[in-house]
Amino acid sequence: MNSFGSTTDQAQIWSVDEHLEDILGTVQALDPIDLQLLDAQGCVLVEEVTAALSLPPFDNSSMDGYAVRVADVAGASEEFPAVLTVIGDVAAGQAEQPTVGPGEAARIMTGAPLPPGAETVVPVEWTDGGLGAGPATTMTAHSAAPEGATGEVRVHRPAEARAHVRAQGSDVQAGDRALTAGTVLGPPQIALLAAIGRGTVRVHPRPRVVVVSTGSELVQPGEQLAQGQIYDSNSFALTAAARDAGAIAYRVGAVSDDAETLRSTIEDQLIRADLVVTTGGVSVGAYDVVKEALTGIGDPDEEEGIGAGSGVEFRKLAMQPGKPQGFGSIGPDHTPLLALPGNPVSSYVSFELFVRPAIRALMGLPADSVHRPAVRAKLTADKALTSPSGKRQFLRGSYDAEAGEVTPVGGAGSHLIAALAHADSLIVVPEDETSVEPGTEVDVVLLG
Amino acid sequence: MNSFGSTTDQAQIWSVDEHLEDILGTVQALDPIDLQLLDAQGCVLVEEVTAALSLPPFDNSSMDGYAVRVADVAGASEEFPAVLTVIGDVAAGQAEQPTVGPGEAARIMTGAPLPPGAETVVPVEWTDGGLGAGPATTMTAHSAAPEGATGEVRVHRPAEARAHVRAQGSDVQAGDRALTAGTVLGPPQIALLAAIGRGTVRVHPRPRVVVVSTGSELVQPGEQLAQGQIYDSNSFALTAAARDAGAIAYRVGAVSDDAETLRSTIEDQLIRADLVVTTGGVSVGAYDVVKEALTGIGDPDEEEGIGAGSGVEFRKLAMQPGKPQGFGSIGPDHTPLLALPGNPVSSYVSFELFVRPAIRALMGLPADSVHRPAVRAKLTADKALTSPSGKRQFLRGSYDAEAGEVTPVGGAGSHLIAALAHADSLIVVPEDETSVEPGTEVDVVLLG
Repeated sequence: MNSFGSTTDQAQIWSVDEHLEDILGTVQALDPIDLQLLDAQGCVLVEEVTAALSLPPFDNSSMDGYAVRVADVAGASEEFPAVLTVIGDVAAGQAEQPTVGPGEAARIMTGAPLPPGAETVVPVEWTDGGLGAGPATTMTAHSAAPEGATGEVRVHRPAEARAHVRAQGSDVQAGDRALTAGTVLGPPQIALLAAIGRGTVRVHPRPRVVVVSTGSELVQPGEQLAQGQIYDSNSFALTAAARDAGAIAYRVGAVSDDAETLRSTIEDQLIRADLVVTTGGVSVGAYDVVKEALTGIGDPDEEEGIGAGSGVEFRKLAMQPGKPQGFGSIGPDHTPLLALPGNPVSSYVSFELFVRPAIRALMGLPADSVHRPAVRAKLTADKALTSPSGKRQFLRGSYDAEAGEVTPVGGAGSHLIAALAHADSLIVVPEDETSVEPGTEVDVVLLG
Repeated sequence: MNSFGSTTDQAQIWSVDEHLEDILGTVQALDPIDLQLLDAQGCVLVEEVTAALSLPPFDNSSMDGYAVRVADVAGASEEFPAVLTVIGDVAAGQAEQPTVGPGEAARIMTGAPLPPGAETVVPVEWTDGGLGAGPATTMTAHSAAPEGATGEVRVHRPAEARAHVRAQGSDVQAGDRALTAGTVLGPPQIALLAAIGRGTVRVHPRPRVVVVSTGSELVQPGEQLAQGQIYDSNSFALTAAARDAGAIAYRVGAVSDDAETLRSTIEDQLIRADLVVTTGGVSVGAYDVVKEALTGIGDPDEEEGIGAGSGVEFRKLAMQPGKPQGFGSIGPDHTPLLALPGNPVSSYVSFELFVRPAIRALMGLPADSVHRPAVRAKLTADKALTSPSGKRQFLRGSYDAEAGEVTPVGGAGSHLIAALAHADSLIVVPEDETSVEPGTEVDVVLLG
């Protein structure tokens, strides 16, 4: 299959799968870049990350308590406590640590390094906290005695060697593989990268997607409609959908049906586009401006600007809604472009089927994350669904996971945007079926 | 239950459910504001949205073709076509429309209004496209003949009245309820709002969450560690997790264990905070700075700045990890604050259990969207899981949806951040169980 050039038979009808295969065979994951950790959230790791240090980096206390020698607390009880001399504090992040000798204890905080000489930690709840009374529930605040703990502490229980000590490297050993290439970076993975000291990480960046709607009849929501005009909804819906898919999306808004204006608008946007999505103007009408503006791209005499791409091919697909589609690349960087039909439902369904997978392929996501999840469900409806022969039909549905059922929402019309707003799934009727009886199992694509 | 004030018994042990109930009983959805459509993505609609206009706003063509009178094409066939005089174009968004008289046809584009006099539309594929040859596959581009279509068109098939016409109001009638309050605004809902002309919409905004980690031992990833120091990972993980939950998250980073510094840092941040999250410094140690800095808040002598809140209560929870927790409100706006423990796994699990629901409650999401989904799954493990009596334990797990099984990842240690990065779920061991045999059904909270 070849998406580009002008030699393809215009009368050919493409299947949904062929068109998608062509797109996913052409679109490549974006070149990796180094990003700050929080900028890499949701991105796919490109490198194998090896831990440069062990976690924990040093033996440290898992409790607030006292660092002591094992022999000094052997046999200790509340009745016969071990009485130790407190030589100071070991706080987390403290530069110098005291050495714990026989008969001595250092007050130690959670996360602080086990000081030299100490062999174990007794929690503060196992001591009198240095107050000479019963078992302590808490320590005296450092700010109340900034010179650190002094005096004596009574220890009420013995402790084995290295009790309440987290051993160096018990989580991660220096040199271990921490994360493998291909991992999607969520909060726990970002936690691990930070913990091993990685300030930046090499990932496929999020694609920048420019959304352009076309049509001289389109007016920005919030403004006044004149006779024969409608509001632009596609550019809003697809910008939101591109973001949901993981892209950084820019809504350019509506461009009138003038080929030169459209070409220069798209050319302006190329500097910030990893993918261009247009809606409208791809059918057989006399004002189908996208088709007119982009048909010549990639011709031998088109060497500059937008014209330098490989070309955009306009196709008829065996699907409903969404029959007319365009796909190709434009401009000197051969930026991929998907041209979707202009009816609201057609453009949204086309986005779900073709643009979303393209965005996720640009992100470098694995194949099983490129597509929406699909399930089988029992059709519940008053009457049989009808579908044109030879076309794959996508109907809006409401899916009930518990019952394993799906119910159509609204009709098949490609202008029925209200039904779309109340659906959560697409019911798929295959090419070779013209009627689906209630009770039949159908494929359902789960949205959102 | 009352989260504030200093009268609560400090020795009380709170259950996970009691602490969560206290938080969700206190945190309210943020006051609604009007947002531009794309800024409202993912937010909860506060108003009932009524359509101010019908969709479509006027009868329009669903095809590229010719607008004609029914009688003029009755009985037409390829052999005996109806020959009509073409009186011009009707494009979408065109201000003036020609009137179609008997024996006449206007070339019409998809989405263009049905012109006066016309009763139906014949698709261009049912005609010769005005070229005098066989059936047309496309129209001649407007730009090739800017004066509009003229001459004659041969129509090869009859059409019923209003064929290929989308009736005014067939999608939405003016005055219809378009969306109900409480709807979460995804791309299709944004499409509908745009289509009915709404430029802005009234929603609960996303909460702004300020994340502060505390600890003198913490170093920013990418910098050099000195003896006894570790990298700050909590502020990165929780900022990412807050974003995933739907918040606008600000990472303040690590503050040293000094109460005055922490207080002034938090006070500075209050201007951009709907929720403050701290990690570390909430236990029984002498350097537990969060506890020290925030304990006096809400006291009668604390009337200004951060101290003007209702107070922050520090609690012991019957859970592992995550025993020490703080919750309350600070500052003149009584901004909610959750103080989480500092161990990486403790802070992440605490975030999932308490902060994420708080964020989603601030967004005004319905109860079933506030919590992570939970399932029952069969435990697969080499040996029984052990759990302390009286505590609800949360272990990191790897969930296999197809098999309905969950496998523990790593151990129970609250410092085991590598295991967390390879888990996708939390295995819940109830308070009254101290051992769970392999093969037992357990509760599993699905993350991400």
